[in-house]
Amino acid sequence: METMKAIIKAVPGPGASLANVEVPKVGPKEVLVKIKAIGICGTDVHIYTWDEWASHRIKPPRIFGHEFVGEVVEVGKDVTLVKPGDYVSAETHIACGKCYYCRTGNAHICENVKILGVDVDGAYAEYIAIPEENAWKTDRSIPPEVAAIQEPFGNAVHATLIEDITAKSVAVFGLGPIGLMSVAIAKAAGASKIFAVEPSDYRRSFAEKMGADFVINPNETDPISYILDHTSGLGVDVVLEMSGSEAALKAGLRVLKKGGVASLLGIPSKPVTIDITENVIFKYLRLYGINGRLMFRTWYQVQELLASKRVDLTPIITHRMKLEQFDEAMKLLIDKQAVKIVLYPE
Amino acid sequence: METMKAIIKAVPGPGASLANVEVPKVGPKEVLVKIKAIGICGTDVHIYTWDEWASHRIKPPRIFGHEFVGEVVEVGKDVTLVKPGDYVSAETHIACGKCYYCRTGNAHICENVKILGVDVDGAYAEYIAIPEENAWKTDRSIPPEVAAIQEPFGNAVHATLIEDITAKSVAVFGLGPIGLMSVAIAKAAGASKIFAVEPSDYRRSFAEKMGADFVINPNETDPISYILDHTSGLGVDVVLEMSGSEAALKAGLRVLKKGGVASLLGIPSKPVTIDITENVIFKYLRLYGINGRLMFRTWYQVQELLASKRVDLTPIITHRMKLEQFDEAMKLLIDKQAVKIVLYPE
Amino acid sequence: METMKAIIKAVPGPGASLANVEVPKVGPKEVLVKIKAIGICGTDVHIYTWDEWASHRIKPPRIFGHEFVGEVVEVGKDVTLVKPGDYVSAETHIACGKCYYCRTGNAHICENVKILGVDVDGAYAEYIAIPEENAWKTDRSIPPEVAAIQEPFGNAVHATLIEDITAKSVAVFGLGPIGLMSVAIAKAAGASKIFAVEPSDYRRSFAEKMGADFVINPNETDPISYILDHTSGLGVDVVLEMSGSEAALKAGLRVLKKGGVASLLGIPSKPVTIDITENVIFKYLRLYGINGRLMFRTWYQVQELLASKRVDLTPIITHRMKLEQFDEAMKLLIDKQAVKIVLYPE
Amino acid sequence: METMKAIIKAVPGPGASLANVEVPKVGPKEVLVKIKAIGICGTDVHIYTWDEWASHRIKPPRIFGHEFVGEVVEVGKDVTLVKPGDYVSAETHIACGKCYYCRTGNAHICENVKILGVDVDGAYAEYIAIPEENAWKTDRSIPPEVAAIQEPFGNAVHATLIEDITAKSVAVFGLGPIGLMSVAIAKAAGASKIFAVEPSDYRRSFAEKMGADFVINPNETDPISYILDHTSGLGVDVVLEMSGSEAALKAGLRVLKKGGVASLLGIPSKPVTIDITENVIFKYLRLYGINGRLMFRTWYQVQELLASKRVDLTPIITHRMKLEQFDEAMKLLIDKQAVKIVLYPE
Repeated sequence: METMKAIIKAVPGPGASLANVEVPKVGPKEVLVKIKAIGICGTDVHIYTWDEWASHRIKPPRIFGHEFVGEVVEVGKDVTLVKPGDYVSAETHIACGKCYYCRTGNAHICENVKILGVDVDGAYAEYIAIPEENAWKTDRSIPPEVAAIQEPFGNAVHATLIEDITAKSVAVFGLGPIGLMSVAIAKAAGASKIFAVEPSDYRRSFAEKMGADFVINPNETDPISYILDHTSGLGVDVVLEMSGSEAALKAGLRVLKKGGVASLLGIPSKPVTIDITENVIFKYLRLYGINGRLMFRTWYQVQELLASKRVDLTPIITHRMKLEQFDEAMKLLIDKQAVKIVLYPE
Repeated sequence: METMKAIIKAVPGPGASLANVEVPKVGPKEVLVKIKAIGICGTDVHIYTWDEWASHRIKPPRIFGHEFVGEVVEVGKDVTLVKPGDYVSAETHIACGKCYYCRTGNAHICENVKILGVDVDGAYAEYIAIPEENAWKTDRSIPPEVAAIQEPFGNAVHATLIEDITAKSVAVFGLGPIGLMSVAIAKAAGASKIFAVEPSDYRRSFAEKMGADFVINPNETDPISYILDHTSGLGVDVVLEMSGSEAALKAGLRVLKKGGVASLLGIPSKPVTIDITENVIFKYLRLYGINGRLMFRTWYQVQELLASKRVDLTPIITHRMKLEQFDEAMKLLIDKQAVKIVLYPE
Repeated sequence: METMKAIIKAVPGPGASLANVEVPKVGPKEVLVKIKAIGICGTDVHIYTWDEWASHRIKPPRIFGHEFVGEVVEVGKDVTLVKPGDYVSAETHIACGKCYYCRTGNAHICENVKILGVDVDGAYAEYIAIPEENAWKTDRSIPPEVAAIQEPFGNAVHATLIEDITAKSVAVFGLGPIGLMSVAIAKAAGASKIFAVEPSDYRRSFAEKMGADFVINPNETDPISYILDHTSGLGVDVVLEMSGSEAALKAGLRVLKKGGVASLLGIPSKPVTIDITENVIFKYLRLYGINGRLMFRTWYQVQELLASKRVDLTPIITHRMKLEQFDEAMKLLIDKQAVKIVLYPE
Repeated sequence: METMKAIIKAVPGPGASLANVEVPKVGPKEVLVKIKAIGICGTDVHIYTWDEWASHRIKPPRIFGHEFVGEVVEVGKDVTLVKPGDYVSAETHIACGKCYYCRTGNAHICENVKILGVDVDGAYAEYIAIPEENAWKTDRSIPPEVAAIQEPFGNAVHATLIEDITAKSVAVFGLGPIGLMSVAIAKAAGASKIFAVEPSDYRRSFAEKMGADFVINPNETDPISYILDHTSGLGVDVVLEMSGSEAALKAGLRVLKKGGVASLLGIPSKPVTIDITENVIFKYLRLYGINGRLMFRTWYQVQELLASKRVDLTPIITHRMKLEQFDEAMKLLIDKQAVKIVLYPE
């Protein structure tokens, strides 16, 4: 029986432990991937710190982590989509393929979805077994640390390009990894003015490099008056709400031009109170609730943007560490002293 | 000096009075319309009862009313769009024609808009002077009582057809005049299942005639479980929020299928508290804040639907009265014992 | 070994023969359907008469036919989508599930598609084996003769609703089964004026019943001047080209309003010569080449329209015959003395 | 009476002459612009050489030219949109404002359009009088030689961005000024692979500088096999047909991915013969006939792209000459030894 090292949530409660576990067996439609690089997602931090959401959703023992790239080393007997030697990342939504959503092009909101590293074992390990449909063959020109974070980049791509953004002004609220990726996508897509709003000095320091034209610290500068002042008083065409903050959401609706568009991806932790009359109806806005990525249209967009080098994600990969340095990595993220950390199992 | 009778808000405060006033003079780009029929809008009820909004917005003396049809009897010297004898209704947004919105196809959200019967004198009178651009030539096949309410019907058309609705299931919340019109539009457009939710017995009694397949009294039946039960548990494709009620808005988000669409036209009187995480983001919804009508794309749709008889609005014209019966008409509306009342100046 | 009767193209050349063949065996992901009703498609006529296309594409012996409904009587060991007793019709494109098109919501244009009754054995038989993904569970409220022709109806739905059509004027060129279905769909969707153009007296006689407002015999009346005369000289918003005739295509471009939309579904037998400068570019048109149906978004639309009775297809089912009357049915179709013929295997 | 120099088509026939003519008078809604820079359009070459189109459309004497920028020096008494001192370019379609197209957001296809420099006097002069609605206030940060060619750039913007192009592969056929502009727009908008096809060595030499990734000489390399080879055999997502060549149009349809989009802007001089069955219908394509620019949505996009420097047009302004060098400039264009020539009246 072959074993591997893995980071595992062994029991309910905060923390995680390095363990030696069995290498997973592949089913007939699954593939075994030898992992080269793994990104740490904000969701993983919630699982690590064991917040309320995690305590309800995660059933230990569980290997978590879901942003990765690796090489296929074994395939189940019925697998036809990939073969050993393929360089693959993974879509993390394991969709049923049978429900109304799956059959109408919306597998990412599947009724019966299971999520890698949440509902089934994930990627903080040397190997992972995934359904062949979830394996995404990746161009070798995309280096492992970037290829590992295609999944969250897909979220950013889907949210940012939900309507076309070329020649439009954009305000991004919240510069976590996805917010910063969105800045770069908006820039690559020809947005004409990109405002980036974020209170953390550390995160804000990455904004210009990713393409922001105007960087705003909301603790010092009122983003509403600043953005209106810089858009002839009209406001921006597009708001990307990436923070989950009620204040940011409200400011976002205020700085939108009438007839503008907001993509909502940041997840407020509780209900928000909005003056929908003044700020949505009279403003004739369109709001998009965004989650996941289109399977697999968004992945093709991801590939096009990265392989063509229209978007460069390396500036936000702030730390490259060994899988064993997991606790240290988590501490950095909790202290907001890292944007994206990539771990290497060897 | 010629005079005419008019219903006028003479001084700040509740009520209105019948007065004899001068017939308006037309400017070089204006037309004088002899009014044949006038609809009473909910906004007019607010002006009549002098609610908080009205007390801030209306500057008496003011002739109010804005839903009408009539015949052009005089045109200013530079007028070219219409001529005496034309049968016209009116778009009530007087747009500036110069701002960003006007120049990008969104005159209905003009920065400098003035509204007939609100910011300038309106239609509860024998004559009205309007800019030629606002005069909408109407097909004589549409009878005056229907032609008079094309403007609110335009709101309903714009909200209902904001995305295509054919072969989709729809829930309409709120069966005031616009909600009932929306039911008829959805039916004409081939919506497959139309749910109509309204607490007032009187208003609800019109739902089937306008085309509703399922009529729900939310005081007796929980609309959420009812609608889910009748849509295989998935919910509807489209919600039309026409009530302005927070409870209805929340129920609307709950009964929407994931990936569904809500048109928000009903105006909540205060901020609403929404669980945007569960009910918008995770549900991958699109929300449209709607006001006004496209100038004049929506008016062409209005004309097509009415002239082709795909939609019949006569069932909701519950009362036909003389202009002098204005107070009586207002009382009926305040008591919710009328849907649409049409007044005749002679 | 169980056998069944089937209509089979036994050898290259015109005609087809009734034969006794083995009941097909189901693979692990296939289902066996006992057929209740089968529609005859124009494609089947081409196979029967053995035209040039058929002689290159069909490899006898082949059971043809692909429009049907029946009951699942057996399922392969890995089948999960349907179960014995289910009432099913079928999507006829067997898609690979792996190519770019399949993975981006366009399985109907799959790179490796196989078509039922063309590339693999079809439905002119007592039983058919199909992949479970192709089985479409059908509402029992839809009677067999209608349920059998959901597949071509899906083509018509996809072509007609490619953009929304509510409150728009439409001209349908060609009143074969799909053209007549399109008339009914346009009517159900609230098209305001429906012109139907067809030279065959027989086919044209069905137009009004399906919902056409204006029925034109192009051998007697010039459709261009007629349609322009009835649309204030502007032309129609939408053209549905269902004939495959070059003359109809040209007339269609001429009667379109500037900025209008054409859906092209009829298949010209050779290249066409178009004045693209005057009739496409200067007219600012949008043209859609249409084939197949979205898998399975269109099928849900089909179900909604039929189960809600917004569309009634029974008027165009002109003949109900036994499977054994196959030659007689073909003769009727070749002589254009039938619209849609439904065959019953028992 | 004040006079000015102008280039004038004095009589029917080839050529044009420098003349001294009256400075135009402004009507009440017109503005007088002192011209700073003028671009030469391909249409102007047709007028100069007096081809068949020109001989039917132009009524000499006529000042031609329509791409310009200048400063407002006088305004009519009813003008409110601009004021003396404003830096303005011009939309060249003088729309009626009253027809169906004007009233539904499509003034660029107005029924009664007049074109500057074609139907009324144009810009090869020291001054031009234009309706105030046609004056487009331009940001001073855009230098005159670029500001002068915003009008054709608007065509390129409208054609290129007719659907969103970010993360998509594109093939541009024809590298005249508009084709080269389209390459730059596609690049700014984040197109992932840009193929540029043009037989002229001179024009092709600008392609890389404008952003093309692959530059093809169709006289040496078959664009069909080349593009298919560089897109995994699938073809490109978008084709921009800017050449007006039948061969290019056919190649464009061949290199499109199934489900792809073509923008047709190049104007074939005669009808083209297309295998619409194989290359449009079976390929499930969308074709857009493009002319003009949205008034004025496209102009705002133009401004955003140029003022933000996302697009730089200076590389294609190959010649800067005096107005008096007009014949020399025309010769360069006829010999295809210039891309865009800008003339200065002083």
